[in-house]
Amino acid sequence: MISDQDIIGRVLYEDADHKFIWLGSERKYKKGLVQTMQYLIIDRGRGILLDPGGVHLFSRVVASLSRYISIDNIDYIFFSHQDPDVSSGIALWLGVTKAKVYISKLWTRFIPHFGIVDTNRVIGIEDRGGSLTLPSGTELKFVPSHFMHSPGQFGAWDPRSRILFTGDIGAAVFHESDETVFVDDFEQHIPLIVGFHSRYIANNAVARKWCGMVEKLNPDMIAPQHGAVYRGKTVKQFLDWLSNLRCGTDIVDAIFGS
Amino acid sequence: MISDQDIIGRVLYEDADHKFIWLGSERKYKKGLVQTMQYLIIDRGRGILLDPGGVHLFSRVVASLSRYISIDNIDYIFFSHQDPDVSSGIALWLGVTKAKVYISKLWTRFIPHFGIVDTNRVIGIEDRGGSLTLPSGTELKFVPSHFMHSPGQFGAWDPRSRILFTGDIGAAVFHESDETVFVDDFEQHIPLIVGFHSRYIANNAVARKWCGMVEKLNPDMIAPQHGAVYRGKTVKQFLDWLSNLRCGTDIVDAIFGS
Repeated sequence: MISDQDIIGRVLYEDADHKFIWLGSERKYKKGLVQTMQYLIIDRGRGILLDPGGVHLFSRVVASLSRYISIDNIDYIFFSHQDPDVSSGIALWLGVTKAKVYISKLWTRFIPHFGIVDTNRVIGIEDRGGSLTLPSGTELKFVPSHFMHSPGQFGAWDPRSRILFTGDIGAAVFHESDETVFVDDFEQHIPLIVGFHSRYIANNAVARKWCGMVEKLNPDMIAPQHGAVYRGKTVKQFLDWLSNLRCGTDIVDAIFGS
Repeated sequence: MISDQDIIGRVLYEDADHKFIWLGSERKYKKGLVQTMQYLIIDRGRGILLDPGGVHLFSRVVASLSRYISIDNIDYIFFSHQDPDVSSGIALWLGVTKAKVYISKLWTRFIPHFGIVDTNRVIGIEDRGGSLTLPSGTELKFVPSHFMHSPGQFGAWDPRSRILFTGDIGAAVFHESDETVFVDDFEQHIPLIVGFHSRYIANNAVARKWCGMVEKLNPDMIAPQHGAVYRGKTVKQFLDWLSNLRCGTDIVDAIFGS
């Protein structure tokens, strides 16, 4: 269960120059709406928001981040992909910040459909990935995650905190009252992740490729946009499970009903 | 080139009870924005809108449809998938109509993130498809089109006009001034469609499955959400081409750059 304290967020990593912050839960908004998690990296006082979310959450996320940083110090916003729960608030965010936006180049011509968007502030990430050098010199890396599920999707690897933000990958769907911040027992977590990953991830071939890349990074935590954060041994357990999952077009006849 | 007449739309099929209407081009909105096409079916005076589009286009699409029907007679809105150019205007559309919305059940918990959405008016389509009986008795069928590109995507098959609305499938990206309403020379059209289909469609296996389903329907026209409408022999030419395309995870190493 999410405690009252966790409504306001939690610092997942901290050193003198650098923080990786989970911006808290949204308990009161539950009914009929998929739950989302937002993250904020602060590096030498400058901020990068990760998947700050849709129109619906804007006021809560602004309030939450204000506990950690002034909105004027948000320099960048990273969107893992184009889904409404990830990026539909873009016009609002561009309005209240001077931030530039990073998103897959596959979506740079689509996101202006969310509303009034200054396309000069939107930077398209090439398919093979890219990086962003933070004030401390730490290089935030954009990790290709295409077709998991979005055809143009990236994770963000922060080598200083050793946290990999994965967007939808690792997403869990909790019941009303059993949310937790971290995954501590992977076997118990499987029922909460198997439905999403089987149905939305394009197939095992791409899942296996992605898991191979992520194993080389050897993250301390995997932080998805829905569900709970993997840490300790559950990181490797999740990667082992996902790299063996039959999903998407592997089971296309079952999905299409024919 | 799109003529001035085509800015206001074109009736693609018409009989005493039933019309299938393309709602016109959006020439003046080009820069930095993917072009989209909206369609309206009118059956015994009642309307169904197909992919009416994002916030950005709302005023133009309302104006366009008002030439054909009163907004009060729009009973249903069909969204092929969750992308911003397709469905980010949902809160606006629910505000000005009494329409119910059909979309894949994969997205019913995501689209409220676009804004204030009455989820009681959103009907989730099961993966295997479904149908909607129109006032004339014609049955509009929801055709499974998952992973092309969205993991939860449907086309809409209108057996009376014999037009298949496909969402993103068949999408073309035109240069500034060479838009046409119909595809009349398929070989010349390939350079405008190969980039999108190779990169966004999940793989050949699912493309081939979809083409087999569509060949059985034997449509007179294939009407996508971007580009131009296939008719006559270009329908079969497009299906033959797509069923042989290597795409998405078939070329995963090239896309991931490794």
